[in-house]
Amino acid sequence: MLTISLIASGKLSYNLCEVFSNNENFRIIEIYSRQKKNTNLFSKKIKFTNKIENLRKADFYFILCNDDSIKEISKKINVEGGVVLHSSGTQNINILSNQKNYGVFYPLQTFNFRDKLNFVDIPVLIEANSKKNLDKLKKLCELLNVTCKVVDSKNRLYYHLAATFANNFTNHLLSVTDEIINKFNLNKDFFIPISNKTIQKFKENKSKESQTGPAIRNDIKTIKKHEKILENSNYLNLYKIITKSIKKNDL
Amino acid sequence: MLTISLIASGKLSYNLCEVFSNNENFRIIEIYSRQKKNTNLFSKKIKFTNKIENLRKADFYFILCNDDSIKEISKKINVEGGVVLHSSGTQNINILSNQKNYGVFYPLQTFNFRDKLNFVDIPVLIEANSKKNLDKLKKLCELLNVTCKVVDSKNRLYYHLAATFANNFTNHLLSVTDEIINKFNLNKDFFIPISNKTIQKFKENKSKESQTGPAIRNDIKTIKKHEKILENSNYLNLYKIITKSIKKNDL
Repeated sequence: MLTISLIASGKLSYNLCEVFSNNENFRIIEIYSRQKKNTNLFSKKIKFTNKIENLRKADFYFILCNDDSIKEISKKINVEGGVVLHSSGTQNINILSNQKNYGVFYPLQTFNFRDKLNFVDIPVLIEANSKKNLDKLKKLCELLNVTCKVVDSKNRLYYHLAATFANNFTNHLLSVTDEIINKFNLNKDFFIPISNKTIQKFKENKSKESQTGPAIRNDIKTIKKHEKILENSNYLNLYKIITKSIKKNDL
Repeated sequence: MLTISLIASGKLSYNLCEVFSNNENFRIIEIYSRQKKNTNLFSKKIKFTNKIENLRKADFYFILCNDDSIKEISKKINVEGGVVLHSSGTQNINILSNQKNYGVFYPLQTFNFRDKLNFVDIPVLIEANSKKNLDKLKKLCELLNVTCKVVDSKNRLYYHLAATFANNFTNHLLSVTDEIINKFNLNKDFFIPISNKTIQKFKENKSKESQTGPAIRNDIKTIKKHEKILENSNYLNLYKIITKSIKKNDL
C-alpha cells in the first residue's frame, strides 16, 4: 500500500482524493489546507492539517496549489524518503530541486468539484529527477490504472498549450454559444448533433479539412449579418479575430 | 411518393441526394448542375441536367447553391405546383417571393462529401409562405424522419450565428490544437478525454461554470509562456483575444 499526502484543497486535490480513497492500493495520510475553504466538500474520513512544516510521513506528497506557490511550499516541507510531486502543466520540474526525490504528475484533464472523474480515462504526463523516482511514479500510475507518458518539462508546456485550445478556448466558444442560445431563446437540443460532429471530426484528425462556414468561404454578407447581431456585445471582436484566423489558417 | 429536384451539386446536395435516394418515400427527378464539378461523386443512377429553365416537374425544388445565387436561380426556374425551397441559414424566405409556393429547409449541421450523415439526428428549421406549404414541408420532414421546427427568417439567423460558434469556430480551435500537436509531435490520443469532457459540459449546460485555465485565473505568467511559444505564429493574436474574452465573459 502506498501512502499519499495531498497539499492544498482545490479542484485537483478533491479529484485525486476521490480516486485515491477509492483504490485499495492507496491510503491518504492527510491533506494540508491553509484555510478551511473547500474542506467540507471532501469525504468526512479525511484528516486535514494546517501545519505545512509538520507533515506526516508518506510515500508521495502532491503539491497541488497554484503554480506560483509551488516553490515556496516545497521549501517549507521536510520529507523523509517520500517523493514530492507537483501537478502543473507549465512549471519546470526543477522548481522542486530543494527536495531529494521529486517529480511531476500532470493529468491532462479539466477538473471541478462537481464531477467525480474516472481517472482511467485521464492521461498523465510524468517526469522525475532520477530513474528510481521515475520507476516509483510509473508504479503509482500502474496502481491507479492510468495511462502515463514520460514527458519533459519543455514538452509538457506544449501539451498544456494544446490543451488550452482543446479545452479552455473551445469551452469558452461553447459558453458563448449558450449565451446566444439563451439571449435569443433558441432550442439548445438543436445544437447537440452539430457539436457532436465537431468533436468527431477532431477525433478523426479531420478538423482542418472539415472547416465550413462563412469565414472559410469568405462570405462577407453573412459575416456582416453576424457582426450586426453582435455589434453591442463583448464578442464582436472575438468574432472578427476568429473569422480572420480561419481565413489565414496556418501556424 | 414525393418527387424531388435538387439544384446545385455541392456538399448539401450530395448529402440530401443520399438521404432521399435511400428513402422509399422519395424519388429524385434530377439534379441541376451548371458544371460537371462533383457530379462524379454522386450515385450513377442520378440524372443530371444543366438546363435550369427546363426543370422537370417535381413536388419540391431544393435550391442548394451559394447564398448569393439563390435569388437569381429562383428567377430562372419555372415550376408548376411544386414548392421551391432554399436551405440557407441566413437568407430571408422572401428572396423566393417570385415563386407561388416557397419555403426554407435549413438543416442545422455541417456537411461534406466524405461522410454519409444520418439525417434522423439532424434538426431542420423550416418556414413557408403559406399554411398549406408549411404543412407540405412538415410532411416532407415526417417522411424523412427528421426533427423539424418552424423558425422565422430572423430567428433562423440567430440559430446560424450560434451554430457558427458551436461548429465553425470550435472546429477552428480544434484544428489549431491539431497543428500544435503536429508541430511539437505530441500524442493526439491524450487530447481525446479532455475534448470529450468539453463537449459533455456543453450538453449539460455547464460550459460557463466549467471554464478553467490560465485566462479565467488571470494567470499572467502562464499566459506569457504560451504567448512566447506562439510568438511567430498566426495564432498569437487569436490566443490573446480569446484569453481577453474569457476574462470579460459577457454577451
